[in-house]
Amino acid sequence: MNKIIPLLDGIRKDVIHGDKEMQDRFCNDHHPALIAELLEQLSPEEVYSILQNMPIEYSAHVMGLLEPATQEEVAEILDDAELADLINNMYSDERVDFIKLLSEDRVARVLRKVAQKERDDIIRLSGHEEGTAGAIMTSEYVSLKQELTVREALDKVRLEAPDKETIYYVFVVDEERKLVGFVSLRDLIMAPSYLRVKEIMKHELAFAYAHDPQEDVARKLSQYDLIAIPIVNANDTLIGIVTFDDVLDVAEEEATSDFHQMGAAGAVTTSLREASIWLIYQKRLPWLMVLILVNVLSGAGIAFYEDTIHAVVALVFFLPLLIGSGGNAGSQSATLMVRALATGDVEMRDWLRLFIREITVALCIGVTMGIAVSMIGIFRGGPDVAVVVAVTMVGVVMMGSLIGMSLPFILTRLKLDPATASAPLVTSLADIAGVLLYFTIATWYFGIVGII
Amino acid sequence: MNKIIPLLDGIRKDVIHGDKEMQDRFCNDHHPALIAELLEQLSPEEVYSILQNMPIEYSAHVMGLLEPATQEEVAEILDDAELADLINNMYSDERVDFIKLLSEDRVARVLRKVAQKERDDIIRLSGHEEGTAGAIMTSEYVSLKQELTVREALDKVRLEAPDKETIYYVFVVDEERKLVGFVSLRDLIMAPSYLRVKEIMKHELAFAYAHDPQEDVARKLSQYDLIAIPIVNANDTLIGIVTFDDVLDVAEEEATSDFHQMGAAGAVTTSLREASIWLIYQKRLPWLMVLILVNVLSGAGIAFYEDTIHAVVALVFFLPLLIGSGGNAGSQSATLMVRALATGDVEMRDWLRLFIREITVALCIGVTMGIAVSMIGIFRGGPDVAVVVAVTMVGVVMMGSLIGMSLPFILTRLKLDPATASAPLVTSLADIAGVLLYFTIATWYFGIVGII
Repeated sequence: MNKIIPLLDGIRKDVIHGDKEMQDRFCNDHHPALIAELLEQLSPEEVYSILQNMPIEYSAHVMGLLEPATQEEVAEILDDAELADLINNMYSDERVDFIKLLSEDRVARVLRKVAQKERDDIIRLSGHEEGTAGAIMTSEYVSLKQELTVREALDKVRLEAPDKETIYYVFVVDEERKLVGFVSLRDLIMAPSYLRVKEIMKHELAFAYAHDPQEDVARKLSQYDLIAIPIVNANDTLIGIVTFDDVLDVAEEEATSDFHQMGAAGAVTTSLREASIWLIYQKRLPWLMVLILVNVLSGAGIAFYEDTIHAVVALVFFLPLLIGSGGNAGSQSATLMVRALATGDVEMRDWLRLFIREITVALCIGVTMGIAVSMIGIFRGGPDVAVVVAVTMVGVVMMGSLIGMSLPFILTRLKLDPATASAPLVTSLADIAGVLLYFTIATWYFGIVGII
Repeated sequence: MNKIIPLLDGIRKDVIHGDKEMQDRFCNDHHPALIAELLEQLSPEEVYSILQNMPIEYSAHVMGLLEPATQEEVAEILDDAELADLINNMYSDERVDFIKLLSEDRVARVLRKVAQKERDDIIRLSGHEEGTAGAIMTSEYVSLKQELTVREALDKVRLEAPDKETIYYVFVVDEERKLVGFVSLRDLIMAPSYLRVKEIMKHELAFAYAHDPQEDVARKLSQYDLIAIPIVNANDTLIGIVTFDDVLDVAEEEATSDFHQMGAAGAVTTSLREASIWLIYQKRLPWLMVLILVNVLSGAGIAFYEDTIHAVVALVFFLPLLIGSGGNAGSQSATLMVRALATGDVEMRDWLRLFIREITVALCIGVTMGIAVSMIGIFRGGPDVAVVVAVTMVGVVMMGSLIGMSLPFILTRLKLDPATASAPLVTSLADIAGVLLYFTIATWYFGIVGII
C-alpha cells in the first residue's frame, strides 16, 4: 500500500497537470487495474477529473475495472455524451455489466449517442441470462476464414489487435460463421507464411454454448489450460469468447457462494466490507429461522424423554457432547462432499461406493470417539452412564456422517445446489437424530439395569 | 463422457497401430489434457504402450497432466532411459512435481541420464518450499535484452517458442538478468520492426518473489489479468514465471483447503473420490477429538446448574434450540469473515469497524429470533420460561456472532490460518457460552420469581 502515495502524486503531476504526452506516457507505464484500485480511494469528482485527462481507451478500461458502486457514482457526474464516449470504448463484457447499473431511461438516452455497431453489440450481449457463459463472454475476438494464408491471417490479426480482448487465440469460422477450428498466435508466427490457415489449425477444440452455466465454462477452460474458450449459439455459430481472466473471477465467485451457503449465510455477492447491516440481516436471518424449526424438533425429542432425564440427570451432562459430535462429524462429511461435487472430483454415480466407504470411516471414527468418551463417562456418571454414552457416540457419529454425506447427493438429485446442505443444517439434523438415539438407548439400558 | 469411446478407438487405430504420420496427426488434433483424462481409465500397462507410440514432446506433456497416483504407476513400468527421456521433455514445473513422486535412488539413477541443462533446472526449481511462488514457477519463458530491435526480438521469440510455456509475455532483463520490464507479443507484432525493445516495453509491472505465498501470486495475476507473472529472487534477478493456468489450479486448491478447514475436516489434498479410509480417518479424527474436549466444558456447565434443571426440567427442552442458534449464528459470521479474509475483501485493519457492525446485525437478528422463540416458550413452558428463553436467545446470537466474527481475526493476528475458525469449532465455543448464559439467566430469573 506504500506505493499509493507516489502514484497519487504521479497522477496529479502527469495526468491532471501534465500535457498530452505526459498523460500518454503515464498511462502506458501503469496498469489500468492499479489505477482503478487507487481511484477507489478518491471522491467521485476526483475520479471524474482524472478519467477526463486520460486517453479515452485507457479511461474506459479503468472505468470497467472500478467497483460497481464507484461506477454508479462516477456515471452520475458524467453527462450523456461523455458517458456514450466511455461506453463506446469499454470492453464489451465490462460494458454490459456497467450498463446494467444505469437507470432505464438513462440507458435509452445514452445508447442513442453510442455508435450503431457498439449498440448492436450491447443489445446482443445483454440478452444472456446471469450465470451463463453468454453473460460473461466478450465479442472482441479475432476470427479468420480457413482459406487465408498465414501471412494474410497475421495481417488481419495485427490490424484488428487494438480492439480485441485477446489475439493469442484466433478462431476459424466457415462461410456461415460456424466454428470450425482455432489457431494460436504462437502457431501463426511459427508457421511458414505461405501455408493456409486450414492446414495449421486445430480441428478439435473445447467450446461452450452461450446458455451453458459459467462453472462449466470455467472448468473446461481450466482443464485445457486455455487463454480463451469460444462460445457458440445453438446453431454452432461463433458469437463470443470467454477469457481466462473472467474465469478466474467466476471461480472465485463460485467458491465464495458455496462457502457462504456452507455456513448457511446466504450468499453475500457484494463486498462484505461494504455490505449494509440490512443486507447482512436479510441474508442471514432466513436460514436461522428455518433452523429454529429444526431445533424445536430436538427439543420435542428431549421433552418426550423427560422421565428418563428426571431419573438420571447426569445424562444431560453428556447431551452437548454427544449431539455436538454427531453434528461435527456430519459437517465434516457434508463439507468434503459439497466441495468434491463443486470441483467435479465426485459425481452422482459415485454415490453408492462413497456411501459404503463413509459407513466404514464413520464406524472407525465413532469407535475411537466412543472409547474416548467412555472414560469421561465413568468419571462423571459411573459405568452405566459410560456404556450408554459410548454406544450412543458410535451411533451419532455414524448417523451424522451419513446424513452429512448423503444430503449433498440428495440435493443434487433434486436439481438443487448441493451446498444447501450447510454445516448448520447438517448439524441441526444430526442433533435431532442424536437426541432420539441417546435417550432411546438410555431409556432402554436403564430400564434393563432397573434404574428407571 | 460419450466421446470417450470413439477417442479410445482413435487411439487404438491411429496411435497404437498407426504409422508415424497418423500418430503425429492424432496428437496434433487432440489436446493432451483430453488424452490424459482418457488414460486415467486405463491400466498402467496400456498407458505405457500408448505413451510410447506418441511423439516424445506430446507424451511428456500428457504424462505431466496425469494424476500423481497414475504417474507413479506408469513410472514403475518405464526403464531408466525412457524415464529420463520423458523428464527431458516435460514442462519444467510439472517435471519437478513428478520427480518428487519417485524414490530417492531412482531419481539419482535417472538424473544421471538427463541432459545437464535440464538437470540444473530441476535442481534449481525443486529447491523452493511447497506453497511458495517458487514451487509453481516454470523456467520456460522468453527473456530479452532491452537493446534488441523489435525484429530481433521477434526472431528470438520464434526461435525459442517450441520450448517455452508461454511466448505471449516476454520479459526484459539487463546485463545481470535483473528484471527491468516486459513486452507482450501483441505489442511486439504491432510495433515498427526498427524500434528497440526498451522503447516499447512497460517499465512498471507486477512481479513476485520466489518465497512469496502462492495465494499472493494468484491474487496479483488475477488483479492485473496477466497471462504470466515474473518471479524474481531476493536480488531482483528473473528466475521464472508463473502462468495463469497454474494460478487457476492454486485458486481451486486454496478454496478447497479453506472449505475443508471450515468444516473442521482437515484438508484432503488428493482426490476425495480416491482417498483411502485411513487417510480420511486421519484427517477427520483430530478435530473431532479436540471438539470433544470443548464440548465437555459445555457438559460441565450444565452439571453446575443441575439444581436449576431439576427445578425446571422444561428448560432442557430449549437447550438444543438456544445453543444451536448461537452456534448457527456464529458459523455464519465465521464463514463470511474467513472467506472475505481469504479473498482480500477484508483486511486486519477493518476489524473494529466490522466488529461494531456485527454487534448491530447480531442484535437485530437476536431480537427477531427472540420474539419467534418466545411464542414457542409460552406454549411449551409458560410465560416465565418464555421470558428466559427470549432473553437468552438475544444473548446467544450476539455472543455466537461475535465469537464467529472475531476468531478469524484473532487467528490471523496470531499468524495462524483464519480458516482454523471452523464452523464446528465456533459452534462448540458458542455452545459453552450459550449453556452458561442460559442457566445463569434462568437461575437468576427463577430465583427472583421464587420458583427455585
